[in-house]
This record gives sequence, structure tokens and C-alpha cells, in this order.
Amino acid sequence: MPRRTVIATVMKRKRIRKRRSSDVKARAEVKSPIRPGLEGGYYKPLSDEDVVRIHEAALSVLANTGVNIVDSECRDILQKAGAKVDAALDRVYFPRNMVEQALKLTNRNVLFYGRDPKHDLNLTAKKVYLGTGGAAVKVLDLDSGHARDSALRDLYDIGRLVDKLENIHFYLRPVVARDVPNDLIDVNTFYACFASTRKHVMGSCYFPDKVAELKKLAIMIAGDEAAFRARPFFSLNLGYVVSPLRFAPETVETLTAAVRAGIAVSLVSAPQSGATSPASLVGTLVQTVAEELAGITYVQLLAPGHPLLMGGMPLVADLRTGSTVGGSAELALMNAAATQLTHFYNLPIYNTCGLTEAKVPDVQAGYEKGMTITATALAGANFNHHAAGMLESMLTVAYEQYVIDDDLGGQILRLVRGLEVNDETLSLDVIHEGALGEGHYLDHPQTLELMQSEYVYPHTADRTSRANWEAAGSWDMREIARHRAREILNSHFPKLLSDNLDARIREEFPIQLPRQTMQPGGYP
Amino acid sequence: MPRRTVIATVMKRKRIRKRRSSDVKARAEVKSPIRPGLEGGYYKPLSDEDVVRIHEAALSVLANTGVNIVDSECRDILQKAGAKVDAALDRVYFPRNMVEQALKLTNRNVLFYGRDPKHDLNLTAKKVYLGTGGAAVKVLDLDSGHARDSALRDLYDIGRLVDKLENIHFYLRPVVARDVPNDLIDVNTFYACFASTRKHVMGSCYFPDKVAELKKLAIMIAGDEAAFRARPFFSLNLGYVVSPLRFAPETVETLTAAVRAGIAVSLVSAPQSGATSPASLVGTLVQTVAEELAGITYVQLLAPGHPLLMGGMPLVADLRTGSTVGGSAELALMNAAATQLTHFYNLPIYNTCGLTEAKVPDVQAGYEKGMTITATALAGANFNHHAAGMLESMLTVAYEQYVIDDDLGGQILRLVRGLEVNDETLSLDVIHEGALGEGHYLDHPQTLELMQSEYVYPHTADRTSRANWEAAGSWDMREIARHRAREILNSHFPKLLSDNLDARIREEFPIQLPRQTMQPGGYP
Repeated sequence: MPRRTVIATVMKRKRIRKRRSSDVKARAEVKSPIRPGLEGGYYKPLSDEDVVRIHEAALSVLANTGVNIVDSECRDILQKAGAKVDAALDRVYFPRNMVEQALKLTNRNVLFYGRDPKHDLNLTAKKVYLGTGGAAVKVLDLDSGHARDSALRDLYDIGRLVDKLENIHFYLRPVVARDVPNDLIDVNTFYACFASTRKHVMGSCYFPDKVAELKKLAIMIAGDEAAFRARPFFSLNLGYVVSPLRFAPETVETLTAAVRAGIAVSLVSAPQSGATSPASLVGTLVQTVAEELAGITYVQLLAPGHPLLMGGMPLVADLRTGSTVGGSAELALMNAAATQLTHFYNLPIYNTCGLTEAKVPDVQAGYEKGMTITATALAGANFNHHAAGMLESMLTVAYEQYVIDDDLGGQILRLVRGLEVNDETLSLDVIHEGALGEGHYLDHPQTLELMQSEYVYPHTADRTSRANWEAAGSWDMREIARHRAREILNSHFPKLLSDNLDARIREEFPIQLPRQTMQPGGYP
Repeated sequence: MPRRTVIATVMKRKRIRKRRSSDVKARAEVKSPIRPGLEGGYYKPLSDEDVVRIHEAALSVLANTGVNIVDSECRDILQKAGAKVDAALDRVYFPRNMVEQALKLTNRNVLFYGRDPKHDLNLTAKKVYLGTGGAAVKVLDLDSGHARDSALRDLYDIGRLVDKLENIHFYLRPVVARDVPNDLIDVNTFYACFASTRKHVMGSCYFPDKVAELKKLAIMIAGDEAAFRARPFFSLNLGYVVSPLRFAPETVETLTAAVRAGIAVSLVSAPQSGATSPASLVGTLVQTVAEELAGITYVQLLAPGHPLLMGGMPLVADLRTGSTVGGSAELALMNAAATQLTHFYNLPIYNTCGLTEAKVPDVQAGYEKGMTITATALAGANFNHHAAGMLESMLTVAYEQYVIDDDLGGQILRLVRGLEVNDETLSLDVIHEGALGEGHYLDHPQTLELMQSEYVYPHTADRTSRANWEAAGSWDMREIARHRAREILNSHFPKLLSDNLDARIREEFPIQLPRQTMQPGGYP
């Protein structure tokens, strides 16, 4: 009898299927091997010595090459603290001890809060979280499958998907609401995110004077300022650096406003090796660290211990064309190395993984994501953004891609969970019983015990036989995921803002998302 | 001006495109950052202590649970060497010192030869090679896209593809020639492989008495026995164990014949956790190591120092259905851990990665491959079989999947290549010049210098803009790869057997592949 038949027969006999569908399934939530915040760190692309050399090189860049910062409050603050300024060149040089002092003051206990404590992110050590990224300008329409401009509605709908998908741990606003006027975009973006998920929300803020507005909106949702301050459930990712080594004046103003408002920030520096940083990957890491240390130093001068993420996320330029490359080994390598560098500083990292140059969720999208997310998660990166939904570098997202990447995320987390070696798991008695007994382990008590706690089962990836797969329509994973995304979007409308609260918010802010569309059947 | 336009303008000015298409492209072969046999080892799922505990547990299993071996020459050999035999139970117990003695004798300088020295595999340390796997029974037809029975012709055609694809380093016979009668299958299988590629060939041998035939065929191709013995260009993978812990009598006979014929072997043990090994992943590793050590011990008694690979490749059973799972985190984890264990023994590993349960080359196939190959390659696994072409666990292969996996393989090798930190790569001067000069690095001499030696460029994966991609027909990677596979199959007919040699081979053996089909236009 072929092995497959043997197994099937035994399974039937023992009624494992039946058991699973009732009590075992019920236990699954408690016993799953995965959860947000499992610790990585098993993959180390750099030696300890390499890490120190890169750190030293970054300090040297800050002291000798410096950062371009125009005449501004920021520059004054740095100068007063000991930085040397060459006003003619708009150049600011950071002495070593100034940076070292800042590193001492930096917050090493960063927690990002969800609206529900179960979604809190403990961004310490090598704890791994996976989430969305942005800011795409196109969406693959779920009906037509073709790319169209992204809109405010997408932020609400993707948020609902993310709210439902367990292996997406935070909601970084994925797209630009291109149907909203510029001066209304910040508050509308955050409104759509807050209205759709209880997970931690991160986004940019395009205008310094809008920071207060966002905080006001969040306080209204929290109930009062004390409640928001106790559990601030959103943060800002701010691209304060234009690589190489230049502070972006307006974004630095926004950063300053955010820090003064007590809002956690990710200090984003995203050089492209070969274009805006050296073609040497190691050189790109040096520049990235230098840019990050400049930002960290500035933030400590504004507010020592302010919660922040090191947001150095080295990208790659395809030097044949100059275009951005997200789905590449070079990117995976640099982001894993950047992770090791943040472990050296004992600071949390906001890194990138899960990007792809594929235009649709095809085999290329799959393997580029599989490779880069595996690398950074095993390295123990904390805030893996872009890990869900992305296509076409950072230009497009797809609803079905969130479902796909959530399934992939489950596998990644299992990999991060790793192996626990102890007397029980070594299984000497189990092996003895299996080998001398029935010659298999299908009905061994250990097997029933570990069925849910040792293994992760996909919700969308196919594991059926070819015959069953063909009988079900020969759908590839993209098609199955589109179906699943539609199911969620048609049914999951979490009511996160009461009618009363929503009415007050709409009195205060010019919200563009019609209330009546935020419910089943509410829009065509 | 948007960054993309800036870059494009600079690129145009510097005529980088033009340069690339002439001299830079010519240098690419010399300067590529990747090559077969780069060293991994950056990913370690186990602590050193864990490794020792698993080793000790495996020794304990061999001494106390033992291996089921029927009355046979093999059992006699083991008994004479000190193993304890319980004839009533057909059980053989391996004392610790017997296994330790065998480990001392084992060959730690295993080289697998290609017909061309550039395809040699140096299977020492943590050197990484990627190759095909088998033995599938179906092929996705390149024209229809649907699954059909595999045939002898497929072994020849896939071999030609593999011969051409640079990141597939060896040719493990991927499919079963289902159109060849059982008693002719071994020699025809190896003939089709030898006729299609100069890379190292590995396959099974289904009958002990056919080993001599395969060797005779290889000697004819080598020229004479001395030439074959100097560079034996094929090896056998033999599933001598039926898990848990039972020697397969006939395959052990084949193994014995292979070792006595001087043919290198991979000792294949492929337990499925939860079915034929414990549901505990660590327990599965213990059993796998025990099975491997039993095989290694036996081979040393036959011929100390005989070249072999540890072929423990733990698989997973989906405990909901009992079916084999290849594309999972649990598999990646166990194969990476098995790699660490072989590094402990300082022996080469034959591991698995690149499997998927997807039925077609879709996003699931992509991410499952991306995840598992990344994990084992970073762990420094030597002989990564199944790393190209596989679909539907081990049941199906697809021509286009070889092209896709070759492109993925290039990325994987780049990741394995890692980062070299030194004064030059730290790039302090380059950063200074870039930051204080033009504000970018596009035309910096370092960029031109490293363009080919720091980066791997895909041959099939898409990196164009969406507009260009749509203009070219909106093909997903599977479609582009099918096109590329057809191009190779229509043009690449390496003449590896002279007319005279081929005629002699056909006089000696009942070769089923018509000679006239082995050339352009030779078959419909």
C-alpha cells in the first residue's frame, strides 16, 4: 500500500479530522506556535568586528563630512549642543562625543500601542513584527485586476483587511489618498486608518502644522489627552533626510513638531545604493548609519528619551536603468545588516522587506518577498514594514497581496519561532515507541498534542492534491486570495468609532469618507 | 525634477547603457559577485549546545532503540564490527564507540565532478550549490501548460535547460521516465542526463545489478576506467532507510554495490514529521541523525573514507490530511538545523529546499521557494537539491520553473556572498565626494567599478516600469519564463557524445531516446 494511503487510512481510523474540526480547532488560538513579537537574531550577515567598523566609519563621516542643514532652528539647536557649523557650505559637523552622548540618552524601551492592548508592539531586543508599508499611488482593482489610482476609500478598505489578518501586526498607511486635496490629506488619511483597524497606525504628515490636528483627532478617539498619552496608538514615519546626508528642511520641522507633541517617530533614511549612496553595499550602510545617528542626535536634543525607531532602510538602484529595486538580494543583505547594527545600539529598527518589482502577484512577487522577509525576520528586525501588500517597488498595492502576505507571514513567524531543544522535544521515548510499535507516529499522543502548537497551517496557500485542485477550478493563489479578500471586505466592518464620536469628529474635521459607506452594502 | 528623471538624465549623459552593452557586459563573466560554492553559515537556528544534545540523543537512539535490519550481508557486517543483533526483532543496536569510530573514518574532502572541471562541486565547509531534484512523475507541458506524465525525453530536455542555466550547479535526474520499461529505466535515465549536460549527474538506481551497467556507461563516456575513476561525474542518491529506523533491504544492496563500485553516494533519509518521525521537529532531527549515522557507519565498514553525503532531509506531514508538505517553515527550519548538524560532523549535506505545494508557478510557489532556499543557503547547506523546477511537493516539474528558479538562484547566491567590510568598501572618501559634490553617486568611479561585481541582475524577473511592462504584453514571470525556456530548448543542443561514441553506446545498451531527435528540429 503506498504511504499516502496508509496515512489516510490511519487518519480516518483515528478520526483525527473529526477531532480537529471540533476541540483541537478550538484550542488552536491558545496553542498556535506563532504570535507577534517572536524573537529573531539567528541570521547575522556581519561579524561583531564588522559592526564596530561600520559604526566607527559612520562617526567619522559625521565628524568629517558632516550633514547639509540649512539655517534653521534645527541647526541652531545642534550648534548650541556642540556641532560645528560651516554656514557658507550649510554643513554641520557632529563631534564624536556629541553623538555618543545622544546614544546614551536614547529610549531603549520603545512600545508602540494598539487601540487594543493585544495589538501592542514591544519593539525591544530582536522581537519581530510584520506590517504594511507605503505610500503607493496605485492599487490593483479587486474586480478588474488592473492598476488604478489609489483613493481614500482604499485606506479604509485595506485597513479592514489588515484588521482581520493576524500576521499583519501594524498598519502603516499603505497608499496616498489621491482623491483628497493636499491640505486635507493628513487628517483624512489617519481618520480612514483609525476607522478601520485597532492595530497601531503609522503614517507621514506632509505639513508641520498638521501634527497638532492629527493629535487632536487621536485624543478625540482616545477619550481625552491623558488616555492618549498613556497609550498613543499612532506614530509618524518622517523622511527627514534626503540622501546623501542632507536634512530636508520642512520634514525636519514636522519632526520637531511631532517630538514636541510627544508622538513617536521613525527616522526614515532610504538611500539607494549606487544612486544616493555608494555602490558599495557596505558604504551604503555607513552612510545610512551616519544619517540615522544625525537624526537620533537631533531628537535627543529636543527631548531626551523620546520614543523613536532607527529608520535606515537601504534600497538599491538598478544601475542599468537607475530605477529603484526592492526585491533583491542586495536589499535583503543590507536590511539584515542594518538590523544587526541596530542590535549593536540596542535600538529598535524600522526596516524594509517584502518589496518586489513584479507588477502583479506572480511567482516573482512571491520569491522576492519570500527571500527578503525571511532574511530580515531571521535577522531579528523589529518593525518590518512593506512586509504586506506591496507590488511594483513602492508604487502599487493589491488587496489580494495582503491576504497572500499574511499567509506567508505565518510561515515566516514559524521560522522565527525556531526550535526548542529539551528532554521532551528530543523525543527519545516517542522515537522508541514509534519505531518499535506501529512504525509510524500518526496516532502517537505527542502528534495529537503538537499538531497545533508545532505547526502553522496556511489559510489560502494550496496543499490539496492536483486532482482536487483541478476539480476546484485550477485557481492559482492570486485568484484564491482575491476571493478571500472579497469575503473579508464584504463582511468585516469593525465599528471602531461610535456614531456620536464620528459625528463630533466630522464636525471638527472635513472628513471626506462618507459615513454611510462604512457598512455592509454601503457602497457599490 | 523627480529623482527618477534625474537619474535617467545622468545615466544618459554618462552613456552607462552603451558601456554596459559592450565592454562592461564583456567583463561581467569575470567580475560577477556570484559563483558556485560561495560559503554560507550566517544563519544558525541551533545553539552549539543544542547541536551536541541532538547528536547525543541520536547516539542514544542507535544504542537503545536500534535499527530494523533483516538478516542480510549488511547485518552480518555490522554484527562482526560490534553491533548487537536481536534476530527475533530484526533489530540492530549500534554501540556508541562503533559510530564514533566510523565518524573518524569518514571522508571530509568530498568532491563531485562535472564532465567539465568548471562544474566540479567542492562539497566541503559551508560551500553552497543549488541543483535540481526528483523524482517527479509529471511535467507541466510547455505548450499546453497542463500536467502530463513525465517521459525520457523530459530528462534530455530538462538537462539541456540545466546545462544552460548558470545558477543550477548539478543535475539530479528530475523525473521518472514513465515511457521506459522498468528494467531499462536506470541506464536510459543516466544516458539522457549524460547526453544533455556536462554538469554532475545524480540519480537513483532501482536495481542493485544495474549499478555495474551505469558504471560501464560512464566509463565509455569518460574514455576508460582510469579516466572515470579520476573524475567520476555521477553519483547515486539512495533511500536506504524507510523511516522510522528501518533499512530497506534491496536499496541497501544497491548501496553496497555502489560503494564497492567506487561510486559516491548520498545516504537519503527523508522522514516526515508527524507521520514517519516525531511531530516534534527536534525529535525528527534526532531520528534523522540516527538514521544517517547508521548509514555512515555501514558505509565505513564497507569502504572507509568512501565519498558520501549526509542525506538527511526532514520533510513535514500536514497533520490535517497526512500529505507531504515541502513548502513550509517547519521544513526550512529542520533543513537549516540539519545543515548545522552536518557542520558539526564536518560532513557534506544533501538537503532539500525549493519545494512547494503549488500546482503551477504562482505566487505561492514563489514565496515557498524564496523562504526555504534562503534559509538553507544562508545556513550553508552544500547540496541543495530540489532547488530548481519543483512543483506539487515532489510530484511535478515545469520547464519554466527551472528558468525562474535559476533567476532566484542568482539572488540567493548574492545573499550568500554577503558583505566584505574593509577600508575600501567602507567608502569614506566616496561618501565625502558624493555628499559634497554632485549629491549623488551615479557617475562616481566606484559606481562604474562595482556595477557588475557588487550586483546580480535578473535575466527573467521584471524590473521595467508598469507602462513598459504593459506595452510588452503584461506577461507575468511564468509567461516570460516559458518564452525563455522555449528559446533555450529550440537552440541549445550541446553535442556531448560524438556520433561514434553514441553508436557504441547504443550497441551496448538498449537506448530508447532516438538519436535523430537530439538536434534542432529533430522532434515535433
